[in-house]
Amino acid sequence: MKRTTYCGFVNEELLNEEIVLKGWIDNRRDLGGIIFLDLRDREGIVQIMADADISDQAWKVADSLRSEYVVEVRGKVIKRDAETVNPELSTGELEVEAVEIKIINKSKALPFVLNDSTTVSQEIRGHYRYLDLRQNKMQKNILLRHRVTQAIRQYLDQDGFIDIETPYLTKSTPEGARDYVVPSRVHEGSFYALPQSPQLFKQLLMSAGFDRYYQIVRCFRDEDLRGDRQPEFTQLDIETTFMDDEEIQEIIEELIAYVMKESMGVEIELPIQRMAYDDAINIYGTDKPDLRFDMPLVDLTEDMAETDFKVFSGTVERGGIVKAINAKGAADAYTRKDIDEGLLDFVKIYGAKGLAWIKVDESGLTGPIAKFFKDKPEEKAIVEKMEAEAGDLILFVADEAEVVHDALGHLRNRFGKELGLIDNSVFKFVWVVDWPLLEYDEDEKRYVAAHHPFTMPKEEDVDKLVSAPEEVYADAYDIVLNGYEIGGGSLRIYQRELQENMFKALGFSVEEYEEQFGFLLEAMDYGFPPHGGIAFGLDRLVMILAGEENIREVIAFPKNSSAMDPMTKAPSPVSDRQLEELSLYVDIDEEEQD
Amino acid sequence: MKRTTYCGFVNEELLNEEIVLKGWIDNRRDLGGIIFLDLRDREGIVQIMADADISDQAWKVADSLRSEYVVEVRGKVIKRDAETVNPELSTGELEVEAVEIKIINKSKALPFVLNDSTTVSQEIRGHYRYLDLRQNKMQKNILLRHRVTQAIRQYLDQDGFIDIETPYLTKSTPEGARDYVVPSRVHEGSFYALPQSPQLFKQLLMSAGFDRYYQIVRCFRDEDLRGDRQPEFTQLDIETTFMDDEEIQEIIEELIAYVMKESMGVEIELPIQRMAYDDAINIYGTDKPDLRFDMPLVDLTEDMAETDFKVFSGTVERGGIVKAINAKGAADAYTRKDIDEGLLDFVKIYGAKGLAWIKVDESGLTGPIAKFFKDKPEEKAIVEKMEAEAGDLILFVADEAEVVHDALGHLRNRFGKELGLIDNSVFKFVWVVDWPLLEYDEDEKRYVAAHHPFTMPKEEDVDKLVSAPEEVYADAYDIVLNGYEIGGGSLRIYQRELQENMFKALGFSVEEYEEQFGFLLEAMDYGFPPHGGIAFGLDRLVMILAGEENIREVIAFPKNSSAMDPMTKAPSPVSDRQLEELSLYVDIDEEEQD
Repeated sequence: MKRTTYCGFVNEELLNEEIVLKGWIDNRRDLGGIIFLDLRDREGIVQIMADADISDQAWKVADSLRSEYVVEVRGKVIKRDAETVNPELSTGELEVEAVEIKIINKSKALPFVLNDSTTVSQEIRGHYRYLDLRQNKMQKNILLRHRVTQAIRQYLDQDGFIDIETPYLTKSTPEGARDYVVPSRVHEGSFYALPQSPQLFKQLLMSAGFDRYYQIVRCFRDEDLRGDRQPEFTQLDIETTFMDDEEIQEIIEELIAYVMKESMGVEIELPIQRMAYDDAINIYGTDKPDLRFDMPLVDLTEDMAETDFKVFSGTVERGGIVKAINAKGAADAYTRKDIDEGLLDFVKIYGAKGLAWIKVDESGLTGPIAKFFKDKPEEKAIVEKMEAEAGDLILFVADEAEVVHDALGHLRNRFGKELGLIDNSVFKFVWVVDWPLLEYDEDEKRYVAAHHPFTMPKEEDVDKLVSAPEEVYADAYDIVLNGYEIGGGSLRIYQRELQENMFKALGFSVEEYEEQFGFLLEAMDYGFPPHGGIAFGLDRLVMILAGEENIREVIAFPKNSSAMDPMTKAPSPVSDRQLEELSLYVDIDEEEQD
Repeated sequence: MKRTTYCGFVNEELLNEEIVLKGWIDNRRDLGGIIFLDLRDREGIVQIMADADISDQAWKVADSLRSEYVVEVRGKVIKRDAETVNPELSTGELEVEAVEIKIINKSKALPFVLNDSTTVSQEIRGHYRYLDLRQNKMQKNILLRHRVTQAIRQYLDQDGFIDIETPYLTKSTPEGARDYVVPSRVHEGSFYALPQSPQLFKQLLMSAGFDRYYQIVRCFRDEDLRGDRQPEFTQLDIETTFMDDEEIQEIIEELIAYVMKESMGVEIELPIQRMAYDDAINIYGTDKPDLRFDMPLVDLTEDMAETDFKVFSGTVERGGIVKAINAKGAADAYTRKDIDEGLLDFVKIYGAKGLAWIKVDESGLTGPIAKFFKDKPEEKAIVEKMEAEAGDLILFVADEAEVVHDALGHLRNRFGKELGLIDNSVFKFVWVVDWPLLEYDEDEKRYVAAHHPFTMPKEEDVDKLVSAPEEVYADAYDIVLNGYEIGGGSLRIYQRELQENMFKALGFSVEEYEEQFGFLLEAMDYGFPPHGGIAFGLDRLVMILAGEENIREVIAFPKNSSAMDPMTKAPSPVSDRQLEELSLYVDIDEEEQD
């Protein structure tokens, strides 16, 4: 028999009609002569009533059913009695009076109870991912992901963007993260690399004149895994020609607004706020500020230059800074011990050596360091600049600027959560613009690209690329959502000389950059147009929209924290013949094997 | 200045307006005081007129321009004189009177002339792919590909299919083609495999209850390359639950009709013809018949069993068959030498030892073997069954059935092209259904799956899986377009015992199949639903629609025939440090290096 509708689609219009459903037994309640079954499919659940007086066949089969059996049910849609209506189901006013039930496939007892995830380990969920994906939350998340990608495609298509596929077997480039490599059988000793992004290919597509490109594409990084990282992740990749940074941002804003509306039903106000990178760092201590709540970092460096509290004045003297945040009304929420142990340990993670604090009560500033400021200009500065009121908790870090921003920025985020300052129904986007082009890498003793080596320096800074690289800003922009970087983009270099100077600023020799990027430089000889674009982390975007904290929750078959697929057990050893064909030997250090 | 429109979009509505265009110099004609420029962007070409009397600036810059320079043009849209209208351009009745021209980027002389592809080697095209892609044909092909994928997504989305991504770093499975593998750094000596298809993941998604899945996904096979094969190729992958083979075929037919309409403007008549595999082989000598022309293989085995022509009767005696095709009206087109050398050499490729022939003229059958049949029942059989008429050329192969079908099937296709029997504007789809489940592999001395090991045997044949595997047919179906297999699908096995029997029939030991497919078998213990689907070769489909003969022509950045990217030169050696991190040594046989 053919299925006539989905369980979740059973509605008043089908009343008194005979229908055929196929799905999984979600629940079974035996009331003697009558057995109630919850039948589940992707669209929802409907109650099946198997009454021995109506169909002995149906009742007998129903009697033998267990959870997760796959069954076919033929029956009549009827109204439930008023007192048995289930308001939690969309089908809750109806039920199906079974005429015939057929077992399609049986099921063992599941290794865990569905929709009760608190009791299930990640290991078990991963091993039985096909069962884990039956859970309401995972069904919703994967469907949301689908809706997001569909909305993206719809918008970009109607806006003239062309979906073009770029290679997965490509060239290894040492700049950036570690590549996954693929040994070549035909070219012994040579390897393809899996792309970290299709950056150069999309730039070459602009050279080819496609004008507007997009792709939803897998990318790969062989990095040590952290919370929301996976060896393979999905990127929404976009590139356009002949546009400046603001024009690109406008397109992307419209895209974001469309996606939020279509997938979440949320209206986003445009234009999205723009904030300079330097301001983000100075005011929020991070390049990805969570603007769902306030609590700025306030600069007290000048005010503390002469203070008797030597920790502050000494820091200022050595060229450091003093900043503070005001946890409004939190004085009573944190004891001295909470601060001197818990919060101090927390800021130490980010390199801070200490965490000074003041509580405010009706009498004014209190706490161990308050006495240094008593009746002095420092006291006035604190009260005014921090907008101090009774009940406030003010926390200070004095150190090098980088440490102060990192420590207070993270502390601010912690307070945002702990003090309940965040409205989880809000989606707060912000553009962080005007990035530095380069960062100095202390380990490698050279400059590295803040974004990537193809980012366009600001026109007015181009001359400083060789003479004063640290002062060069870039036409680069990140899009931040609720404190997560969800996308980053830039205008790209399109002139050979500038690109060569960029490689030189990064410490490449001519031989090195010709070897690695010669094809790009050569392309720049043949009418290379100005272009720019952006790349979104799709997993992370969907994670935030789904209200999840790990991208595993929005990927159908993710790897675990040791980059392994817990279901198939990949990676796994391959045969000697395979290795021989690839001219490879595996050489495992035995000592490491324990 | 911002671009106001595309070159190809300049039309009457813009008459007398000032516009800004950006694009490439496609052509330049200097008529002294006036220079005409063809400015090109993705949407087309428009003529720019730089007249020194109107703008000295524009004329001076125009004078310095060369092909493929990237420029910005500000100017007024005017009508061309009637005698200078260019009917080949959509913008041909208009031109842009330049007010200002700015050079954005220069270009060296290109290594080849655009849109004159007959003169360019594949090597040069590949090396400068970004220039090759500027050619009209490649622009059209990539845009067609985009339209095809968009149409696919539109149809499947509105039909309730969910786009779900499956992993690229997955488990190596020895059944099938050779895998590309990816060494794991974390798990020394272990490897991921790049997927040959997401087959098992999509089956597990059906177990998870998503009901309807699709994905446009890259697949990888490390095989020796032939005409239209690439190391990485793109598959449209579809799977559904609770449907029989005909229901699935109906969905796919509607999809095909939609895609043909949206991307090509072609109406396809539904339902698509269905042909049993055995009939395809018997009548057309191939499992992918080109039905744009007739010329069936005619069975003369019984008629030739007793003939004096011992080549035929001897073959029949040894259990072989005799078949023939009639190349209508081709008697004069092929000389005795053409047949005995050219065509004979051709069928020898497919294992035929000889190629007998008869020409028909007003007097009847002629040619070296005609005398054996003269005034005998064989003559009557030939004339009647072959529908022989004066001017026909009839070709016979007598051999084992497989050789006869292969040789005559290919000869039929050759005649289709050589005799101009094919209308290239026709798109002729056919379902080839009722496939054998297994094929006997002479090299491996065992049965292998005709499709893959997860294909459902026909219900009535299940019992023969162990006792008489060669007699088992499958619920499998291929979709064939113009003689190319563009897609293949089946119902899948969803019961553990049957799947285990299938593995056994393929010669797996219990340990082997548990090791490789244990996770699938385990999943079948937990309410695995009946399901089936199909996978299309997207590259090949677009290739046929584009009228191309190699999938390279519809892939933006393809590999060459030695699996190399001629632009980036991937694959390439990686650093010793990278190898060390992967616990790998490269061991190249020096002798092979010469």
